[in-house]
Amino acid sequence: MNMGSEHTSTNIVWHESRVSRQFRHEAFGQQGCTLWFTGLSGSGKSTLAFTLEHKLIEAEFKSYVLDGDNIRHGLNNNLGFSDEDREENIRRVGEVSKLFADAGLIVLSSFISPFKQDRQLVRKIHEDAELNFIEIYIDTPLAICEERDPKQLYAKARRGEIPNFTGISSPYEEPDNAEIIIPVTYTPEQSSQHIFDYLKQHQIIKP
Amino acid sequence: MNMGSEHTSTNIVWHESRVSRQFRHEAFGQQGCTLWFTGLSGSGKSTLAFTLEHKLIEAEFKSYVLDGDNIRHGLNNNLGFSDEDREENIRRVGEVSKLFADAGLIVLSSFISPFKQDRQLVRKIHEDAELNFIEIYIDTPLAICEERDPKQLYAKARRGEIPNFTGISSPYEEPDNAEIIIPVTYTPEQSSQHIFDYLKQHQIIKP
Repeated sequence: MNMGSEHTSTNIVWHESRVSRQFRHEAFGQQGCTLWFTGLSGSGKSTLAFTLEHKLIEAEFKSYVLDGDNIRHGLNNNLGFSDEDREENIRRVGEVSKLFADAGLIVLSSFISPFKQDRQLVRKIHEDAELNFIEIYIDTPLAICEERDPKQLYAKARRGEIPNFTGISSPYEEPDNAEIIIPVTYTPEQSSQHIFDYLKQHQIIKP
Repeated sequence: MNMGSEHTSTNIVWHESRVSRQFRHEAFGQQGCTLWFTGLSGSGKSTLAFTLEHKLIEAEFKSYVLDGDNIRHGLNNNLGFSDEDREENIRRVGEVSKLFADAGLIVLSSFISPFKQDRQLVRKIHEDAELNFIEIYIDTPLAICEERDPKQLYAKARRGEIPNFTGISSPYEEPDNAEIIIPVTYTPEQSSQHIFDYLKQHQIIKP
């Protein structure tokens, strides 16, 4: 992989899609948008994302979960866990989320994404494309995530078997300006309903 | 970018989406699938893809065009035109197409994709995920593409200003087993109708 090569833009021309965003919006009965779930490992991001996806599709809205674990088996299977690779991981997922939102879907992107700078980049990618970006912070304290530890990752990290583990040996930078904060007291169903209501209020989906 | 680092899979677990493919299929009224448009620069791939996308959305089917030119502004903006980068370009688009198809969309991926090996990889990515992959060869002869030359790329390539230009200084390997071949005599509307009928016949979309 030559990732350092200059981007030769001479033979690239932007093709405007023949289908306008408005046309797509009306045909789908929803606005495309990205719901970006951020929080510690074990905070409940993916459980919430899958619960909400089911609720949305049942209500005939089109949605899809991009998941931090799942995407590494495909698109990002050539990335490791170095700082650079983690940054590229989030950048690619941000770009793919943008494509899904542009396609008119409600995409639920569930990634630890511990660094403000990375989340800010993803937000900017959406803003530049005039697409909705809704940051959702799953505010589950470290102690509870560590107690749950469904994959025994915290235990391994404490033993020093996983380097740069978020919350243990690498920081999690809490969002300052998340659109939605999910407190630990909410069940997945309550959280899911809360976000569903938010989407209606903001006319992302039809009331 | 450290692309050579080993893929550390110890802390990756596959999350099964709570929404089954069948449930999604019924809710959307269509099967997800990838239509892979391959052919020379100027063959008419993108024009056809955008024409078909419009026709599908007008008929209330969910579809989206991934375009060779467009995607390089975002997801693949860190790739150049070396052999390795071209291969990675197609691989990433293949993985993103798979995600769209898995999400239940009809994704129209329009890329020169001149090498059989790359197209075979993308087909395999879909087959492994049990998703429909339909290769569409836009069989427009080089002489006609060169005569059209809307972006004056062939002229530049003939002057040696663009290295490795498909059809001039780099080969285009014709598909042996494309599901659909579009002859040069078809208009975009005829081609679009032809593919639309194919999708109905194969029950990708409701008749």
